[in-house]
Amino acid sequence: MITGKNYIGAEKSATGNKTYRTFDPKLNLETEWTFTEATSEEIDKAVSEAANAFKVYRTISDTKKAEFLRTIAKEIEILGDSLINTYMKESGLPEGRAKGERGRTIGQLNAFANLLEEGSWVDATIDTAQPSRTPIPKIDLRKMLMPIGPIVVFGSSNFPFAFSTAGGDTASALAAGCPVIVKSHPMHAATGEMVASAVLLAVEKTGMPNGVFSNINSSGIEVGQQLVMHPKVKGVGFTGSIKGGTALYRLANQRDEPIPVFAEMGSINPVVALPSALVEKGDDWAKSYASSITLGAGQFCTNPGLILGIKSTSLDSFIKTLGETIAVIDPICMLHPNIYNGFENGKKELSNQGGVDIVAEYSEDAAPNYAKQKVLTVNGTNFLKNTKLHQEVFGPFSIVVRCENAEELTEIIEKLEGQLTGTILGSNEEISTFSSVVSALQSRVGRIIFNGVPTGVEVCPSMQHGGPFPATTDSRFTSVGTAAIKRWVRPVAFQNWPQEALPLALKDDNPLGINRLVDSKFTYDKI
Amino acid sequence: MITGKNYIGAEKSATGNKTYRTFDPKLNLETEWTFTEATSEEIDKAVSEAANAFKVYRTISDTKKAEFLRTIAKEIEILGDSLINTYMKESGLPEGRAKGERGRTIGQLNAFANLLEEGSWVDATIDTAQPSRTPIPKIDLRKMLMPIGPIVVFGSSNFPFAFSTAGGDTASALAAGCPVIVKSHPMHAATGEMVASAVLLAVEKTGMPNGVFSNINSSGIEVGQQLVMHPKVKGVGFTGSIKGGTALYRLANQRDEPIPVFAEMGSINPVVALPSALVEKGDDWAKSYASSITLGAGQFCTNPGLILGIKSTSLDSFIKTLGETIAVIDPICMLHPNIYNGFENGKKELSNQGGVDIVAEYSEDAAPNYAKQKVLTVNGTNFLKNTKLHQEVFGPFSIVVRCENAEELTEIIEKLEGQLTGTILGSNEEISTFSSVVSALQSRVGRIIFNGVPTGVEVCPSMQHGGPFPATTDSRFTSVGTAAIKRWVRPVAFQNWPQEALPLALKDDNPLGINRLVDSKFTYDKI
Repeated sequence: MITGKNYIGAEKSATGNKTYRTFDPKLNLETEWTFTEATSEEIDKAVSEAANAFKVYRTISDTKKAEFLRTIAKEIEILGDSLINTYMKESGLPEGRAKGERGRTIGQLNAFANLLEEGSWVDATIDTAQPSRTPIPKIDLRKMLMPIGPIVVFGSSNFPFAFSTAGGDTASALAAGCPVIVKSHPMHAATGEMVASAVLLAVEKTGMPNGVFSNINSSGIEVGQQLVMHPKVKGVGFTGSIKGGTALYRLANQRDEPIPVFAEMGSINPVVALPSALVEKGDDWAKSYASSITLGAGQFCTNPGLILGIKSTSLDSFIKTLGETIAVIDPICMLHPNIYNGFENGKKELSNQGGVDIVAEYSEDAAPNYAKQKVLTVNGTNFLKNTKLHQEVFGPFSIVVRCENAEELTEIIEKLEGQLTGTILGSNEEISTFSSVVSALQSRVGRIIFNGVPTGVEVCPSMQHGGPFPATTDSRFTSVGTAAIKRWVRPVAFQNWPQEALPLALKDDNPLGINRLVDSKFTYDKI
Repeated sequence: MITGKNYIGAEKSATGNKTYRTFDPKLNLETEWTFTEATSEEIDKAVSEAANAFKVYRTISDTKKAEFLRTIAKEIEILGDSLINTYMKESGLPEGRAKGERGRTIGQLNAFANLLEEGSWVDATIDTAQPSRTPIPKIDLRKMLMPIGPIVVFGSSNFPFAFSTAGGDTASALAAGCPVIVKSHPMHAATGEMVASAVLLAVEKTGMPNGVFSNINSSGIEVGQQLVMHPKVKGVGFTGSIKGGTALYRLANQRDEPIPVFAEMGSINPVVALPSALVEKGDDWAKSYASSITLGAGQFCTNPGLILGIKSTSLDSFIKTLGETIAVIDPICMLHPNIYNGFENGKKELSNQGGVDIVAEYSEDAAPNYAKQKVLTVNGTNFLKNTKLHQEVFGPFSIVVRCENAEELTEIIEKLEGQLTGTILGSNEEISTFSSVVSALQSRVGRIIFNGVPTGVEVCPSMQHGGPFPATTDSRFTSVGTAAIKRWVRPVAFQNWPQEALPLALKDDNPLGINRLVDSKFTYDKI
């Protein structure tokens, strides 16, 4: 079933001579599947077909696009256990996670289908004519969001379903009316190929134009660079490392026509434990955080990599319980030896910094690629002066910083880089009494959590999964939730346009029944 | 009254030793005012004060910010004829234009004040908790737009009021809750200083934090570069040339923390004259376009620099009338000798291209800096193969392209760079019969006009003044109209946050009475 070929629209192609295999981290062995890296010609063909498909796809109704997305979801489901087994083999992740993530992926596709069927997402804005206005008559002007063109999606390593082939970036771009070329993640190319085949079946079954979706194999960086630099590509979605995302972002900016790159590059997700949380619920929070830090071998961009508290006996007690709890949690297999090695190197580098003490470390033997969790602690002064300690270690790892007082705590937060999330543990009253801390944290993050853990990212309209750089390259957008569609559209205004030629969303009689801003008032009414 | 100093918050400062003067293009003489270029220390001080001011300013209510904007508008009005005379002297523009543009500027400030008072602009989105949801309970999540931080605004040459010191960029950023540092345009530094003094009076009268507004003098590029690279600057608004805007955009991208740069860099605003428009109303359109091309000496980013038609006797007749009408229009003084010289060079360069014929040229003597309008014509083949002819000539200039047929017309449109506007002249039926032409044009522009002229940009919610690169650096945003505020904000999500600590826009009882997306339904209701 796995061909190892590139899917250029409906065509399977493998004209190149560079091949690679995926890896089973649990067996610590390569899989049986061989993939052929795309050639320049194949890349150009995929993008050119996407550009041609765009001419048709951008005119297809939201209802038809919704049917397309729902059919993708169904075709993924139809792949059944075969897909789940391939996912597990290539990721080392357990069955529950595989099925949960498949559910999320299907849920995302259906959420965008719902958004399209409801229709108000296009932000229709109408200012009717005022022919008798003085000194100049006002001309009829109407605006709505429209797709920008072919989008390249870079699959992520840590979400082989939900942020890869038919994941959130692909679903949002297809929903927007943009063709998608996926640069398949080399760690799970077989999983990617299976999902791609499901998407292409849906293309065929719902009569979408050929070229609206392609899946390109690549194990290095050249294919991705060529995709980003292709003149017919109009936007990029990426989930991965700061280094990789920033490089693509800067590359896209050097194009003759720069294009938007939305890169989600992770963060350390600071957690502030205020005094009452430590005094009243220190043990509970320590146990919750031991779980959150080790969840999925810490391979989440919302993993809590930094816990900040003010020096006290209750903070000492929290650290003690956190250490005791986390030390005995069974290690989990990581996605790939490269990720395991990156984790080991990151742990070592941060453990060797000045003033750092070990709180807990899993010290038993473990199978190859199984992540041995570690927690460090350091005082505020040492943390402030050493930005190495501010770096993300991707895996089950965290640092607890013991601050002198609220001022030092605030200063530390202000000096952190941008983050996806920030969390406050405390009482309702402490939101006021520690307002500088809360305010500083809110300024550095996209999502601020009260009394919870940052892991677990709900897919819904109010989710914000995007924060100041380097959490993401553009904090004005999100990659999770239905608002993710806004990354791939731009407003187009129609001036003095005849009713019969206007898009449905902008016609006087509001045939789609959507919410619109008409003469500065939101309404579902006709004009 | 004109001090020539930098306004760093409330402080007037001129510690540097580089000075420059503004110019009266009608007298063809320097003005009496001398300005002192800002030093590195002054720039750093202005930005640092803006960053401090942001800590307070971002917490100020929309109602108070609206009062601030209205007070700026009033203070500008109070400057009266003195301001109008300074504007006229530094720009060469006539009194009617000066007063009209002042009206527009005041209108913009009040439009943003209205937007703030209404309050729905923050896109409040609420997903309420579902504690009994399986398999995982849904946690309460609420999101709204919040300001990103200090913004640098580059004043434009061609709108000394409406896109400079207190123009659309400044008004939208202040409305968003972002402090503004204006890099004053060197061609109208005295006008800029007077408007800055009005803004600073409003700061004082409405109790806004010092540093929320600064006005920085500069005649070269170094001050602007330093501002864009300053770590505490979080966004940039620019209106000007492709060269200048692109340079700043790429510079900002090289920062350790890249920041959004919204540069509006103009365009040639293609106009497509379909057969019926030429047959039935050719003479009328020729006369309208003679006016539109020469309006304000063509110094508008929406100036129609390209008119496309299919070869026919009616196109010949249109060209003849356009030429006869435009040739005898009295020249108008341009903004500055540099702009006049740029216009002369641009005209000369494009006139010397192969296959180009002159349709009309003002051939009488004119006063220094007065723009002599010119219209060229060329066939589609020559236009297609020579991208020099696709360049903007800033001034009263246009090219009429005689295409072989609709296919060539479509190909030409597809090969144009991104544009702010595109215009279709024709009958309602031709929108269907020439659907490829219309569709191609819509893909290249931010605003598509039917039977009108592109000059004249309404300030309203449905305006889109932003198109694919190089019209602007980010086609997903607009610089004109109330939606311009969206450039300076990012969504922040509050998870499981207590009611009492939520921002007003997100509280259950909707105290601001705004339109919100609650559990995927738009409503003005409480929860």
